[in-house]
Amino acid sequence: MRLSHLYAPTLRDDPADAEAASHRLLVRAGFIRQLMSGVFTTLPLGMRTMRKIEAIVREEMDASGAQEIRMPIILPSEPWKKTGRWQAYGPVMFKLIDRHERELGLGPTQEEAVTPLVAGDLHSYRDLPVNLYQVEWKYRDEFRPRYGLLRVREFLMKDAYSFDRDDEAMHRSYATMMDAYRRIFDRCGIRYVVVEADPGTIGGGTNHEFMAEASIGEDLYVACPNGDYLADIEAATPKAPDPLEPAELEPLTEVSTPGAATIAAVTEQLGVAADKTLKCILFKAGDTVVAALAPGDREIDQVKLERRFFPRPVAPFEDADFASNGYAKGFVGPQGLHADVIVLADASVRGGADWITGANAPDVHVTGANTPRDFRVDDYMDLVQIREGDPCPGDGAPLRIERSIVVGHIYELGTRYSEPLEARFVDEDGSEQFFRMGCYGLGIGRTMAAAVEQFHDDAGIALPKVLAPFEVVIVVANRDDERVVAEAERVYGELVDRGVEAVLDDREETAGVKFADADLIGYPVQVVIGKRGVQAGTADLKLRSSGERSQAPLAEAAAAVVDLLASAP
Amino acid sequence: MRLSHLYAPTLRDDPADAEAASHRLLVRAGFIRQLMSGVFTTLPLGMRTMRKIEAIVREEMDASGAQEIRMPIILPSEPWKKTGRWQAYGPVMFKLIDRHERELGLGPTQEEAVTPLVAGDLHSYRDLPVNLYQVEWKYRDEFRPRYGLLRVREFLMKDAYSFDRDDEAMHRSYATMMDAYRRIFDRCGIRYVVVEADPGTIGGGTNHEFMAEASIGEDLYVACPNGDYLADIEAATPKAPDPLEPAELEPLTEVSTPGAATIAAVTEQLGVAADKTLKCILFKAGDTVVAALAPGDREIDQVKLERRFFPRPVAPFEDADFASNGYAKGFVGPQGLHADVIVLADASVRGGADWITGANAPDVHVTGANTPRDFRVDDYMDLVQIREGDPCPGDGAPLRIERSIVVGHIYELGTRYSEPLEARFVDEDGSEQFFRMGCYGLGIGRTMAAAVEQFHDDAGIALPKVLAPFEVVIVVANRDDERVVAEAERVYGELVDRGVEAVLDDREETAGVKFADADLIGYPVQVVIGKRGVQAGTADLKLRSSGERSQAPLAEAAAAVVDLLASAP
Repeated sequence: MRLSHLYAPTLRDDPADAEAASHRLLVRAGFIRQLMSGVFTTLPLGMRTMRKIEAIVREEMDASGAQEIRMPIILPSEPWKKTGRWQAYGPVMFKLIDRHERELGLGPTQEEAVTPLVAGDLHSYRDLPVNLYQVEWKYRDEFRPRYGLLRVREFLMKDAYSFDRDDEAMHRSYATMMDAYRRIFDRCGIRYVVVEADPGTIGGGTNHEFMAEASIGEDLYVACPNGDYLADIEAATPKAPDPLEPAELEPLTEVSTPGAATIAAVTEQLGVAADKTLKCILFKAGDTVVAALAPGDREIDQVKLERRFFPRPVAPFEDADFASNGYAKGFVGPQGLHADVIVLADASVRGGADWITGANAPDVHVTGANTPRDFRVDDYMDLVQIREGDPCPGDGAPLRIERSIVVGHIYELGTRYSEPLEARFVDEDGSEQFFRMGCYGLGIGRTMAAAVEQFHDDAGIALPKVLAPFEVVIVVANRDDERVVAEAERVYGELVDRGVEAVLDDREETAGVKFADADLIGYPVQVVIGKRGVQAGTADLKLRSSGERSQAPLAEAAAAVVDLLASAP
Repeated sequence: MRLSHLYAPTLRDDPADAEAASHRLLVRAGFIRQLMSGVFTTLPLGMRTMRKIEAIVREEMDASGAQEIRMPIILPSEPWKKTGRWQAYGPVMFKLIDRHERELGLGPTQEEAVTPLVAGDLHSYRDLPVNLYQVEWKYRDEFRPRYGLLRVREFLMKDAYSFDRDDEAMHRSYATMMDAYRRIFDRCGIRYVVVEADPGTIGGGTNHEFMAEASIGEDLYVACPNGDYLADIEAATPKAPDPLEPAELEPLTEVSTPGAATIAAVTEQLGVAADKTLKCILFKAGDTVVAALAPGDREIDQVKLERRFFPRPVAPFEDADFASNGYAKGFVGPQGLHADVIVLADASVRGGADWITGANAPDVHVTGANTPRDFRVDDYMDLVQIREGDPCPGDGAPLRIERSIVVGHIYELGTRYSEPLEARFVDEDGSEQFFRMGCYGLGIGRTMAAAVEQFHDDAGIALPKVLAPFEVVIVVANRDDERVVAEAERVYGELVDRGVEAVLDDREETAGVKFADADLIGYPVQVVIGKRGVQAGTADLKLRSSGERSQAPLAEAAAAVVDLLASAP
């Protein structure tokens, strides 16, 4: 390919709104262009890198026994209503009405399409297992798209769906995909961790995220410095404290706390630390009232409540709810709640006693509140957001919180979709069984962006050679010198003949512009053919990753490039 | 690939709604499955055939100098409103509202995306020409999807867009694409014609359709039996008759025609042939009134009026329009129309005289109406639907109407999009110029369906080997015979080693089912390894296209298959 013909428009300046390095550099290097918020066109260089990722993904999926199909992007709403996800996705799912007034959605994922497909075609346990995958566009109407390809509304994803006869077979399919994903990301050369994760709107049981390390990453995970624990921040559970059982409990005593409707105000008025107070937050989970208890210095994670009560919607009490239920906003305590309130306490509440909490009357708190003497706890669970320094559930060491980009997420779904969609097969004993499913997502554009986050410097992108759009650039430093042009053409031709993915920078630009673009686009090996070199019989070589420069005899330049490329990361 | 693992569910019965052979067979052979009206999933066999078409398309597009990109499917409405196509597509374009109340459309084609893209990146004549293509999903909310993949709402299309400096360069880009398209369809092995066509909602000037012959085809084209004329039925123009100039004109005479508000009634009452009457149909083109004249035996083609008045909408008069303009519905004639009415006559009107037409009063017609004596014609043009037997514009021979499937459509767009979207570059002389564009569509799924329409028989699909999902099937006729299985595995392995795309039918099915499926799916070469053959040391071979059977020594079966495959179409 000659750069004079390649549609690879580079930009000197960063796009105004680009916060992430990958966003900035992918636009500047001419890999992508934004069409509108969260929606991008992929240009030829971006196509080449994404195609390389796709090729690795397809090879590993095929090798794992999965088979490629293509499912529609526009989907009928009926199956989504049966699984509850039409509502659960809410405004995140793009919805439209066709000319016959039928409701359609743009698929954010395709369980509701693939499950009826397989149920329609496979009727017997003998047809199982099967794993179908596709590489297709997915849609999420993100409220605030940002970070280039990291939080977008249209994205290319490899999604696979396994169908098995029983849980044991499902576990095997899951393990096969786990291995395939590791091979894919290993081959892409990116640094990543595999963590236990939250199932989110997909649902199901066991699931893992593949998280690419990235300082800009929005996806937080928790790691034990001793390496014995890794989890998505949503799924992470710190070690529960040993129950505190003081020899003697304080008596329950009311104290006046005028106007102290927040933990901060209570701690200030009473001169106590926040972790001595017990916050009692009221929620509605559908028609049920839920009280969530946690030490005053911790935040209740509503997502964890949502997961517990799924598919019932969970929302914090509003003013009207306090009034109609007869609770004093800002002064709620777990003692004296109505009998039908479900009282859930974070596991850390076990580690305290003699709590200061609301007295369920305006401007009054109590001290010395203890369970079960003064209040009941229906269940202890993980209710709060984890934070840096919380104890590792394995060895108790202080956990670290790390940033990353989720590039893959795999799930064991069990019968989460096959039951509501009535997707059954006939088992060996003649009984009808629901398919045991798994689903396996991998973001193609995200993987490219994550790779750029990991492999770049001030000058531009420096992808490993398996992902770079071309392996080698031959820079014609002096376009008006016939010998320079002839030698560059010869080296280019020899490299193409040797099967190297080479591009010849024959543009009417200065050598300086060509060098800057070569660094920006990040060809793993750069070859410069210039006037002085041609006179001296040498070509200048540079390894993009290290910046290391060398020279080769002009006549053997192609061979030298092939050797240098072999040593390139 | 082993059929026992392949997701290739075949059906014994035709789908209930399948009218076209391609629909019927692609579903039965397990290439596709319908998700909802006009929306299909592609299964592994269909993927393989579509991928082969895509590979041919990409090779020829790349060889032509075009470069692959990927544009979004969800598109902002603003550029579509600027080009007038948001309205022009009307309900055919899927439209949706995002969570920020912004109007979006699902692209039926992407001129409104690619034109601003290129204008944003290419600023100089030196950057031209450029031709960008993609292979992506397109959307049309067809009122009545049918014929399987032939009239669908979601379809995979290769679309390319060329940008040139001037008309001459645009013509060259167009010619390059014309050649590339011919090579693509030649390589696919389908029978097709290239015809002049109507630009439809795309707009622009010169355009051609690539029409695959097919008896089910909905796309009609006109052909001269002498081979000197081919045109899409919408674009076809018959030879205009020589003007009839009678020595003496009849006088204009009113005749009473009570209740004769139709051509049929007039011809019956007056005992004349329909082609002696002149129909005068009134239309609104925006605020303008248009009278369209044609001999009474011909139908006015509203599309031709729409093209003439684009972007003004064209609609026939309604009752209220007759009343408000003072015309007598059913008795309108061209004489005595208001001065501001535009009078257009079909070219065939030149070939008549002494017309019988409406007298512009209820229940009255006139005879002997002649132009220019009695009425004016502002312009003669092609206004009527062509029909079988109309004279060829070349040699006057009676034209034939043929059925086909449009698999490609290429257009010279000129500045149809660059002007409204203000897409300019700086020319050599420093002046700003609009890009001269072309666009080039090719339906991937349609090409597969057209190929099946051309290559099938009662037993199933019989695609040429370049398009068949696999080249060879090895049928294990007796699965319980170890020697049969071993020999089949050996032949299969040898074929795979030789680079043949082979599939082993190792399913737990009867030989009869396997033979039927082999014919249905249409492997170009079938090899049967059975008990008797193994005993006799022979393998049975069959060429799908001709049904011709042969035998080969079992030991040399693989070599014999390779030879037979080489001879297969």
